[in-house]
Amino acid sequence: MAVTAVRAPDSRQRFLDAAIRLFARHSFAGTSLQMIADEVGVTKSAVHHHFRTREELLSAVVEPVIGELRRAVEAAEGQRSRRARAERMLIGFVDLVVGNRVLVPMLVGDPGAIEILRDRADLRDLVDRQFKLLADVEPGVGGWVKADVVTAGIAVGTGARAGALGDDVLRKHLIETGRRTLGLRTPRCLT
Amino acid sequence: MAVTAVRAPDSRQRFLDAAIRLFARHSFAGTSLQMIADEVGVTKSAVHHHFRTREELLSAVVEPVIGELRRAVEAAEGQRSRRARAERMLIGFVDLVVGNRVLVPMLVGDPGAIEILRDRADLRDLVDRQFKLLADVEPGVGGWVKADVVTAGIAVGTGARAGALGDDVLRKHLIETGRRTLGLRTPRCLT
Repeated sequence: MAVTAVRAPDSRQRFLDAAIRLFARHSFAGTSLQMIADEVGVTKSAVHHHFRTREELLSAVVEPVIGELRRAVEAAEGQRSRRARAERMLIGFVDLVVGNRVLVPMLVGDPGAIEILRDRADLRDLVDRQFKLLADVEPGVGGWVKADVVTAGIAVGTGARAGALGDDVLRKHLIETGRRTLGLRTPRCLT
Repeated sequence: MAVTAVRAPDSRQRFLDAAIRLFARHSFAGTSLQMIADEVGVTKSAVHHHFRTREELLSAVVEPVIGELRRAVEAAEGQRSRRARAERMLIGFVDLVVGNRVLVPMLVGDPGAIEILRDRADLRDLVDRQFKLLADVEPGVGGWVKADVVTAGIAVGTGARAGALGDDVLRKHLIETGRRTLGLRTPRCLT
């Protein structure tokens, strides 16, 4: 049986999961391939077989999140009114954050990770589009600041005390908080 | 003249300023004493004379911010109503963040720095008290989530696009954003 071929994707995923945990705990710059190998219980060369550097690991970890963000931004841009676009973007972003509760705070807050991700033009473009969708509810500087606070607050705030909440409760309250901050009214059907 | 005695505090402060810049750019774990020496243009042993480890540097960098946070928390706790306490805490925190725009996002977002600062019982106590002051406006989980989002959003969001704004404009909009998120009304005299 082709054991190696069957096991390969699994060990790759185990490395990614271990990397997310360690990046979040010790920061990107504070995590070595050796630490990831130790966490999974394999040799460093086993990790090295899949990922040559921690930069490659970060890229692989971030890939599915960028895909989610792209779908959320595109869905929001397809709405007709400014408010509907911001509402859709907010919900899409909250879903992304709640679905990646360990990873996202680190991507937004860790200077070492930000330094690497800054070079990804595709991610920068998506973050710019998300920002515009959220800031557009209120013209001018007030809208910018609210978009920045909501984005960073939802991304990083979930790692704090709210981290003890279940996904559904957290999701509901993050959406409500974001709506209030941005000045979006809660649709009557959802109250 | 006692040149060394006069110069000593200055070079100490130059190391602290360089450390803040480098921590924010490369993360705490990604910054070595050698990098700080290079940034200031001295030898590593000159840095080592003041700080033996980067942990010591982080402590020295954080000390004045903890003092500011303590004064803000105590001023807020001295207010009579829940709303006045939250309002005072919000303004004190915004002032702290606007006065430390490079340092604070890193303290809140960098897992390597958080890992070290978690051991400081005095800081943990102050952060807990700040959280209670802000969360108290709305009983229950809704208040928690809003307190977390506002705290993280104000701390980290100022590093993003809003970073281009002057201190006064940023301060005004952060306070307005925080008030709206927490459900505090803007006092009529300030509108």
